[in-house]
Amino acid sequence: MSDAVSPLAPKKQPRMPTVEGVRIATAQAGIKYKGRTDVVAMVFDEGTTVAGVFTRSKCPSAPVEFCRQNLPGGSARVLVVNSGNANAFTGKRGRETTSMTGEAAAKAAGCAQEEVFLASTGVIGEPLDAGKFSHLLAGMVETAEPALWGEAGKAIMTTDTYPKYATAKVMIGETEVTLNGIAKGAGMIAPDMATMLSFLATDAAIDAAVLQDLLSKGVGKTFNAVTVDSDTSTSDTLMLFATGAAAKRGAPRITDPKDARLSQFRRALNRMLKNLALQVVRDGEGARKQVEVTVTGAKSARSAKRVALSIANSPLVKTAVAGEDANWGRVVMAVGKAGEPADRDLLSIWFGDIRVAHQGERDPAYSETETSAYMKRDEIAVRVDLGLGRGKATVWTCDLTKEYVAINGDYRS
Amino acid sequence: MSDAVSPLAPKKQPRMPTVEGVRIATAQAGIKYKGRTDVVAMVFDEGTTVAGVFTRSKCPSAPVEFCRQNLPGGSARVLVVNSGNANAFTGKRGRETTSMTGEAAAKAAGCAQEEVFLASTGVIGEPLDAGKFSHLLAGMVETAEPALWGEAGKAIMTTDTYPKYATAKVMIGETEVTLNGIAKGAGMIAPDMATMLSFLATDAAIDAAVLQDLLSKGVGKTFNAVTVDSDTSTSDTLMLFATGAAAKRGAPRITDPKDARLSQFRRALNRMLKNLALQVVRDGEGARKQVEVTVTGAKSARSAKRVALSIANSPLVKTAVAGEDANWGRVVMAVGKAGEPADRDLLSIWFGDIRVAHQGERDPAYSETETSAYMKRDEIAVRVDLGLGRGKATVWTCDLTKEYVAINGDYRS
Repeated sequence: MSDAVSPLAPKKQPRMPTVEGVRIATAQAGIKYKGRTDVVAMVFDEGTTVAGVFTRSKCPSAPVEFCRQNLPGGSARVLVVNSGNANAFTGKRGRETTSMTGEAAAKAAGCAQEEVFLASTGVIGEPLDAGKFSHLLAGMVETAEPALWGEAGKAIMTTDTYPKYATAKVMIGETEVTLNGIAKGAGMIAPDMATMLSFLATDAAIDAAVLQDLLSKGVGKTFNAVTVDSDTSTSDTLMLFATGAAAKRGAPRITDPKDARLSQFRRALNRMLKNLALQVVRDGEGARKQVEVTVTGAKSARSAKRVALSIANSPLVKTAVAGEDANWGRVVMAVGKAGEPADRDLLSIWFGDIRVAHQGERDPAYSETETSAYMKRDEIAVRVDLGLGRGKATVWTCDLTKEYVAINGDYRS
Repeated sequence: MSDAVSPLAPKKQPRMPTVEGVRIATAQAGIKYKGRTDVVAMVFDEGTTVAGVFTRSKCPSAPVEFCRQNLPGGSARVLVVNSGNANAFTGKRGRETTSMTGEAAAKAAGCAQEEVFLASTGVIGEPLDAGKFSHLLAGMVETAEPALWGEAGKAIMTTDTYPKYATAKVMIGETEVTLNGIAKGAGMIAPDMATMLSFLATDAAIDAAVLQDLLSKGVGKTFNAVTVDSDTSTSDTLMLFATGAAAKRGAPRITDPKDARLSQFRRALNRMLKNLALQVVRDGEGARKQVEVTVTGAKSARSAKRVALSIANSPLVKTAVAGEDANWGRVVMAVGKAGEPADRDLLSIWFGDIRVAHQGERDPAYSETETSAYMKRDEIAVRVDLGLGRGKATVWTCDLTKEYVAINGDYRS
């Protein structure tokens, strides 16, 4: 594996502020990596609410099952994340590990086991020895401090080439609140370690049910609209914590998802989810270009998204983008194979603002030179109008390069 | 593109016999390629019946629509195939081309236009000028001879690295009949030219409806069970012609698909369809290994096939095979993402005869050395038992190599 940072990495990382009610500690447990941190504990003040969205895999990891079990309680006091081993497909021993870690974390934080959340990312199928880090948890909780968001973002990395951060300040009523987020790649990004993890926290005071509503609605056009190679991790985890600490400064407690005072927060949350999801795509294994695929004119939004994903997941489309080839014939192919309503003679296709195909034929004004120049960009937009209805959707992916094959073919050898 | 023949090419090509009632001609029309044949005409005796199966793409090519229109007539006198241009996504002009070619072919063969069948393979979206080869058809039909199956197999190639042939002789009643087949790659194999074409012919006397029944049932476990990269061509075409010439030698006319005298023929046909489909997989772009994926213990055969295709199409599984890495964690991932019923704790996975995972955990007897040695083979078998029911399915694919990305990323540039 090359150590090079993705050419699509952000030019500049944001400075992460603290979030009142959140303290963080990291540690080097040597689970797989040497000489770097691989465990994070996030400790939350009493009263912290929680929401989560998890992989749709039918074979989820043990930590995902653990979180799903605790989520209905709506209350969180500590989150423990390790990198290097996903604790996935580890059978009964996997459950023993989560229960042992959960117990140690609850004891360290002085809370109920139902208030503990866990995530693991790394190799699949290798037993994860909780003994490697559970003894560290008491010390970590004790020494945790608010200003370690930067460290947390690094400790959860696996094959990511850069840590992923986002932060925002917005008003809820008359009070400013903070929203922080970190993520790690993603898609299927990682060799054995296909996992997207993302954790957001705010000091706003928001009931768990409202928080879940915000998060569940937010993922559709963000984390659930990105794909690197169509492969789905057993461990994908996205969680949002709200400590409520801003209530001391006068922030209202939000108990109704329709509360108008949520509008700024909702927009900021959705922007942050999209920002983090795109950072994940831009760090897709071997990625050299970001590809935005928009489908309009579909019979429904659902149909549009399926067609868009068919295009975004097509190896032929992705290799064409890698080769800077405006190969719209492959886009037609991907529309055709999606199985959704489509009429060849109504199709139009654009690369950027250049219409390359119209009503089932190459655009009469098509210029190979102009289109080829466009394809040299870092960010490519493909738009398809199906001409059938009003359904539309946008998804994001990256190109498919030889580097992807090298990373995933050479990894264990 | 490299000129190297796939390492998985057959060691030896069969010598193709003639099929009574079929005459063949090839020509160099210079549609795209120089210095090689790119048009084939197959001329059939009066009374020839026909069956066909076509791409499921919602954006099929003009020749596919042309064939679909003529198929219900059940009668064929001439097939015209060109390589170099797929006449796909060419709008009204595409239909003008097929109708002009159909007219010229009907005139040349002295038949109705409803008895003409067409196929094109090559670049998508470029208008195909029928004038380039329609004037050749009269001469081709006149000079066509029975012994040119070898030439026909070569003339339909695009990025194939070897021509694909199969032949068999079987008894129908007391009479021996011949069955010949040719194919070209396939899957999404080809750069711009993603197309699988295959044409079979026999001198047996079989009604069109029976022929269609045989072919439609035969594709499920053969051509519809292979995948190179999950991409579906706009032009996939599989046709079976029966001239009935063997009737003169006493072969009975088969008018009922349940006729017991068909059993040898049915088996030979199914074997040939599988043989040709596998030749196509083994010539997948950049392929270095054939991968057979078998799923057993599924809730239904349909569910088993979906899980098998999810594994066979997973870029992470395919790159692992390319890297000779027995990465069964990725197989778990692909089972999980298929969306079909699966229970992690009941899963077992084998590479060849080596059980690598059992009941949701790594097999206690797992040996990395033994499994790694197995992964060095040319033909890899992956088997997954879901432990839920009796549904099973087998599909075939190839590995995903850097060469695939090179071929598809560098093609037009």
